[in-house]
Amino acid sequence: MDIEDLKKKYFLSPTNEKEIFQWMEKALQMSIAFLANRGGWGLHSDISLPELESMFSDGDFPEKPAELQAVLQETFDTVIRHSVHVSNPNFIGHMTGASPYFGLIVDLLTSALNQNLVKIETALSGSFVEGQTTAWLHSLVYKKPSAFYSQILHNPNIALGNVTSGGTIGNLTALTVARNLKFPRVAQEGLAKALNAAGYEDICILAGKRVHYSIQKVAGVLGIGTNQVFEIPVEKYSNKVSLSELKNTILKLKNSKTCILAIVGIAGSTETGSIDDLNSLADIAEENGIWFHVDAAWGGALLLSPTHQKLLNGIQRADSVVIDGHKAFYVPLAHGAVLFRDESALDAIRHCARYIIRSGSVDLGRTSLEGSRRFNSFKMWFFLKVLGREGYATLVDSSVKLTERFAELINLHPCFEQTSAQESNILTYRFLPTGWKQRLDTLRQKIEYARNTQDTLKGSEELEKMLLVFSFVTTILNELNIELQKKQRQAGKSFVSRTTLESVDSGFDTVVLRAVPFNPLTTPTILTEILFEQEVLGEDILKKLLPRFNSANLDGFDVFFGSP
Amino acid sequence: MDIEDLKKKYFLSPTNEKEIFQWMEKALQMSIAFLANRGGWGLHSDISLPELESMFSDGDFPEKPAELQAVLQETFDTVIRHSVHVSNPNFIGHMTGASPYFGLIVDLLTSALNQNLVKIETALSGSFVEGQTTAWLHSLVYKKPSAFYSQILHNPNIALGNVTSGGTIGNLTALTVARNLKFPRVAQEGLAKALNAAGYEDICILAGKRVHYSIQKVAGVLGIGTNQVFEIPVEKYSNKVSLSELKNTILKLKNSKTCILAIVGIAGSTETGSIDDLNSLADIAEENGIWFHVDAAWGGALLLSPTHQKLLNGIQRADSVVIDGHKAFYVPLAHGAVLFRDESALDAIRHCARYIIRSGSVDLGRTSLEGSRRFNSFKMWFFLKVLGREGYATLVDSSVKLTERFAELINLHPCFEQTSAQESNILTYRFLPTGWKQRLDTLRQKIEYARNTQDTLKGSEELEKMLLVFSFVTTILNELNIELQKKQRQAGKSFVSRTTLESVDSGFDTVVLRAVPFNPLTTPTILTEILFEQEVLGEDILKKLLPRFNSANLDGFDVFFGSP
Repeated sequence: MDIEDLKKKYFLSPTNEKEIFQWMEKALQMSIAFLANRGGWGLHSDISLPELESMFSDGDFPEKPAELQAVLQETFDTVIRHSVHVSNPNFIGHMTGASPYFGLIVDLLTSALNQNLVKIETALSGSFVEGQTTAWLHSLVYKKPSAFYSQILHNPNIALGNVTSGGTIGNLTALTVARNLKFPRVAQEGLAKALNAAGYEDICILAGKRVHYSIQKVAGVLGIGTNQVFEIPVEKYSNKVSLSELKNTILKLKNSKTCILAIVGIAGSTETGSIDDLNSLADIAEENGIWFHVDAAWGGALLLSPTHQKLLNGIQRADSVVIDGHKAFYVPLAHGAVLFRDESALDAIRHCARYIIRSGSVDLGRTSLEGSRRFNSFKMWFFLKVLGREGYATLVDSSVKLTERFAELINLHPCFEQTSAQESNILTYRFLPTGWKQRLDTLRQKIEYARNTQDTLKGSEELEKMLLVFSFVTTILNELNIELQKKQRQAGKSFVSRTTLESVDSGFDTVVLRAVPFNPLTTPTILTEILFEQEVLGEDILKKLLPRFNSANLDGFDVFFGSP
Repeated sequence: MDIEDLKKKYFLSPTNEKEIFQWMEKALQMSIAFLANRGGWGLHSDISLPELESMFSDGDFPEKPAELQAVLQETFDTVIRHSVHVSNPNFIGHMTGASPYFGLIVDLLTSALNQNLVKIETALSGSFVEGQTTAWLHSLVYKKPSAFYSQILHNPNIALGNVTSGGTIGNLTALTVARNLKFPRVAQEGLAKALNAAGYEDICILAGKRVHYSIQKVAGVLGIGTNQVFEIPVEKYSNKVSLSELKNTILKLKNSKTCILAIVGIAGSTETGSIDDLNSLADIAEENGIWFHVDAAWGGALLLSPTHQKLLNGIQRADSVVIDGHKAFYVPLAHGAVLFRDESALDAIRHCARYIIRSGSVDLGRTSLEGSRRFNSFKMWFFLKVLGREGYATLVDSSVKLTERFAELINLHPCFEQTSAQESNILTYRFLPTGWKQRLDTLRQKIEYARNTQDTLKGSEELEKMLLVFSFVTTILNELNIELQKKQRQAGKSFVSRTTLESVDSGFDTVVLRAVPFNPLTTPTILTEILFEQEVLGEDILKKLLPRFNSANLDGFDVFFGSP
């Protein structure tokens, strides 16, 4: 194919406009067929991983051009056919889900405009759209007066935050800024010298055990070290960081050679949806002069609801906050944002270059860690305009209500146990055989009592025995729930995820099922069906596990299983 | 709006499918209208920045929902209307440009699928598409036998590279890996301890002066320090890093307390398109046991051309390589990739979490710095399939040829001077008054001669005088070219960018115009017109600058301007 053919064929010209419309119509039909699940595949096709693998296992670089029709057909038969229907109302396992259909509109326009937000020369209106959207998100968190925003909205010397490819780069930005402000020499001279000059040997970050793994990644990248994220224990059921443990840790570190760089508050933990007591964290941070960062990648959307925003009370006192549009704001991937209370904070990573982002310019690249960037803020801008705070509040409230309903269903059911507090729209629970819930509770109480009162050797022996039983039961239930979750995923009708929490019964790693019911198309009926499917699966797996009970040495296990 | 209304209105259901088609048709019409420049706005509308600013200056969070029709119309009138036509053939100033129209198709499908590549549970086929695409890009650089790729393509324990949001995160990934491999304790314990344990005081990175500013950003983030990117002088016209200077620097640092972490080779510098002598850099890195990273974000596409791939000879010896799909691969934003020669290198940043990316899983999030990720690799996969190496070679060759043609036009023209070597598809040059090119050359020779031969005070005085003249002339030309570039941008018919190079006349910062003619729709005729526009603008600006010459003390300036 020579260049003239290529141009005529694939680059826009008056002669191929009609063709483009036709192709786009095909693509749209494919999109709708996928979204409406015309294939009736459930959450995903029933292809095995090895089969799928072999479909994409040709390692030879494509040499010859192929016809668009052929590639599109192949795309439909392989890529689309075997994608996950994350927008299906039965898919309640992850933070990726359904979008309003106008997401497609903005994504199409974004692609057509192909603006590069690094520089105003490649994103004229885009730079201002991004500035305005950032200001809106900032006002959602920090609630400064309207006049503040109108005044500084597009001031080239002020950056209220950055748009990022997601929460991880947001967290990276926030903690880079915190580090650079704490150690003025670090940006230019490096961490070793900066620490040395300040009289420290190392740095740590404090966060509850429910902290997202990206904070560890970020600590690794920043030269702080993944081990230097000190995970503070969390309260048993609420999964909120223990304030007393946090204070103790700070006290211990206070006059040490370890600098406490930041306290990371979690607003909507990935595993349990738990929200730390942000106001108290702000107090502690303030008292000790420590940077306060809040990871609200998930929970930030609660701020949109007049009813639920109080869950995040204190967030306005955070030095930095991360919010993801592509999670609970229902924006298609990718959109993240990091916001700063102090409008000069981002100066700590301001940079320029001769050929791009000249100093004093309005180029948005001046404070972003990323360079060339897609116009992802456009989506957020468009979504906020169409839905407004009111529309969003409706979505958020409905999602929380649905989760509450799910918790009710679980608690009414003899075969399920809720395993963490339900604060917002994430819920963990597990399957267990009928009757075990009460027995477990009794055993827990006995263990608790024995722990508090044991003072004789006999008491200690009994405790040991009970703990052994508890461990045995937990092992069985873990295996059961892992198997159950896998089977349900494979069946492909519905999907919840799973994780392992130590906070259910302290000291015992407990496998739990994890639901994120934020798709507005998910109904209580669907949730009931999901539970029913799990019940059937659970009973079935139990049958295979039972022989193990019988062969196990059940001596002393009557505390749980009753006398044989 | 209650939740039922919202669901009916904006979430896909059989009752609103027709509506979606209609909306999408509108969006497509807007896209085509923009791309075909129906408004006849040139490269951008003639709105002033303050006017544009005021359009997006409402700092109040949108409270009420708005009708889709209204928001879409507003989008068209504000966002789209005032976007930059980066795909216009007269826009030859940046690395963001035209895409084949099937870019729209893949972006639409990507949005509809909304797969999250962090995890196979949210990206079934997507995980394999990404793996295959990464292998293809790897083979483009490292050319390992086909059997190698088919064998390890989807091995969960092996990652050949990551897909990133762009070159900056790619460079960050590469240098994080280099740092973590060099200092085994750094990832977990932090940089200060790791350096100390290894007996170093600090770290540096070596790169030619044309290095992209992201390397400094990355050094800042990693705790290495922006000052610790030691910029090695480049050869005068070629802008390639000076090998002797590099060797000298290494020699000086060899037994010091500064660890040389990496040599960064540049394959297609942002400013001049220059490509370092990668084979020699590989030799030097190998001899000294230093990590060799190549930033081929721009130049990587040259590998697609059998004719031009030799420019990147030696790249296959790099430990890590960054390539951007959203630059010279013509993929709409955003797509970047980082690749590693050693398939175990990425283990240095491998991580897992209980609730996501369990150890041993095939989840792509296991080695990526970013967390949730859009399915951007889909675009690259689709583009490589449709265009094939052959189609790409046609595009690349045509772009280089066009740049050669532009260099010819410039060199034939009495008012333009090429200011750096033209190796690939970036070119720098500047406007100067007729006759000055020769005079500058003469003056340069005289200065050179005087520098080499001066041994008397008189000689030195004469040299001083000539340098003063040179500096004066450079200042005038700089001002002239800055003004010219701004005027041309404002006129909005065509766009070249500008930068400041010290490598034109060593020691003098020289403002140059910078062209990146990689849009296949750009023709030699268009380039001629752009030059003509610049000539007219230049002559015009000159008229206003002339009075300054006359009032300047021209004593001794006859070496340049001739006797008064």
